[in-house]
Amino acid sequence: MTLALRDQASACGKIILLGEHSVVYGHPALAAGLRRGLILRARPLADRHAPMELAIPGWNLDLRLLASSDHPVVRACLEVLAHCDAPVTGWRIEGDVGLPSGAGLGSSAALSVALARLAIDPEGPEPDTDAVVEASMVGERIFHGTPSGLDSEVAARGGVNAFARGQGCEPVRLAAPLHLVVMPSGVPRQTGTLVAGVRARRDRYPRVIDPVLDACGALVVRARAAIESGDFGTVAELANVAQELLSALGVSHPVLDDLCALALRHGAAAAKLTGAGGGGCAFALCETPADAAKVLAGLARERPELAADPRTAPFAVEIDAT
Amino acid sequence: MTLALRDQASACGKIILLGEHSVVYGHPALAAGLRRGLILRARPLADRHAPMELAIPGWNLDLRLLASSDHPVVRACLEVLAHCDAPVTGWRIEGDVGLPSGAGLGSSAALSVALARLAIDPEGPEPDTDAVVEASMVGERIFHGTPSGLDSEVAARGGVNAFARGQGCEPVRLAAPLHLVVMPSGVPRQTGTLVAGVRARRDRYPRVIDPVLDACGALVVRARAAIESGDFGTVAELANVAQELLSALGVSHPVLDDLCALALRHGAAAAKLTGAGGGGCAFALCETPADAAKVLAGLARERPELAADPRTAPFAVEIDAT
Repeated sequence: MTLALRDQASACGKIILLGEHSVVYGHPALAAGLRRGLILRARPLADRHAPMELAIPGWNLDLRLLASSDHPVVRACLEVLAHCDAPVTGWRIEGDVGLPSGAGLGSSAALSVALARLAIDPEGPEPDTDAVVEASMVGERIFHGTPSGLDSEVAARGGVNAFARGQGCEPVRLAAPLHLVVMPSGVPRQTGTLVAGVRARRDRYPRVIDPVLDACGALVVRARAAIESGDFGTVAELANVAQELLSALGVSHPVLDDLCALALRHGAAAAKLTGAGGGGCAFALCETPADAAKVLAGLARERPELAADPRTAPFAVEIDAT
Repeated sequence: MTLALRDQASACGKIILLGEHSVVYGHPALAAGLRRGLILRARPLADRHAPMELAIPGWNLDLRLLASSDHPVVRACLEVLAHCDAPVTGWRIEGDVGLPSGAGLGSSAALSVALARLAIDPEGPEPDTDAVVEASMVGERIFHGTPSGLDSEVAARGGVNAFARGQGCEPVRLAAPLHLVVMPSGVPRQTGTLVAGVRARRDRYPRVIDPVLDACGALVVRARAAIESGDFGTVAELANVAQELLSALGVSHPVLDDLCALALRHGAAAAKLTGAGGGGCAFALCETPADAAKVLAGLARERPELAADPRTAPFAVEIDAT
């Protein structure tokens, strides 16, 4: 065990672009890293035996990492640090965030990835990404039981990734950047309930819902090709179709529908929910940064109560071409 | 040729319940007769050689049936009367309507069916329905080129009918009445444009759109069984899914989406567009007449400009159990 940590490390947030829900049935999905994620900075405490401190004001976290705690963030951080053979006393870690927590944007994976990067071999070169993902998964298991690993992969690697159940992640090359406006709804998402709801609807109407899931899967394959070739119009059209198919699965929500309609009215080329739905976030896909700025301005004007709260304020993010 | 007409005859309007657009690709659809259709009353003119008059104030029609006219209503009516071996002079026909014209609710078929009923063997028994449909088709061809015959069948027979391309109409037995609120959008429908738009989207993304069309077709089969067994919850759930699938085909419209959202907020169990979409009408499906009244009241309050205009005023209609 060393007593050191790196000074600073960061991780991406995550947004599912396409394929949520159908991915449960073996179809592919696409997720992107959000560079507005988390930056952690570490500085030594005067008392090197004092418990580690973790303060992330943007997520309302101000914790001491005590082994006796049953706070999931404390438990996850201690597990990650132990996995990395890192100190668990004598440091204060402060975090700057660029995304809300608990909104399906991969905040827990961003935390464990950034923490692993602070902790793995802090006096050596930048840690290997596979090792970072592995350490992050130790924390993710505390939060999510049996996580797919997608969030950790995207938090560590950024960019756009294709994934399918049992096949892991594959980086997707973007021919052109994607300009998104992320729109948290302020309505809590209910992943388990919604996944179960889709399954129940499929059990009731298999001949209706199975083809819808097939369409969702085919849509992701086609959209991936369009992303790789820089065919923005196709990506946008398919993202809009995806929103309607997700609605047919029963996982949208009036607040998400409202945000999507507003974004389209203010110049977005497409808008859809992301993740489990039933709350959580939607995103708008814009052709240019100027369009994204217009969507943000329109949302601020028409839904000022969301824009005023940092937990629900829409924000623009660019997914870089690779 | 006789110089007589019946005193009075009526016909139903038509509303497509489920299966619009996918019916173009060979899948089944369901349509219902709207008893609020058209009542025609005939009275002799003093001058038996004066041209026939047709006045339907609710559809803004006040016409003399002159052979020299190129007004499609005049031409269609004269063709129907000639087909029925009926007089074309000496009568005034006045119509009371219960539905707007040009909204995809089968107004032209209602006119030709009611006219055929006035005209076929007016001193004999009620005319045979097949003969009425055949006469109506003579008029429908003037309006629509190569009509499917569905509108004429439903206008003449009422009730709920299943139909599929090349297979004609089949009556569906309802275990319980269906309570609808018909909601004209006031936006002109564009049947040809929308049918072509679906085809273009299918040509671009066959692996996405073909399964959506399959889902639409399977949905109609399942919903028909639910209508026959009186399983209202299933009918409503599938009608809502149908609206999302139609949106995925690209045929909804913000005004239709708005009307559907309003109807659901005011107590409808389901709401969807009907017919070609892109304008035209939507309908709400309600569990009880009281629910339908609440939806009507809510629409009148929130969209008073639509309610104030007879061409766009929402109206409740009951499809009887059989």
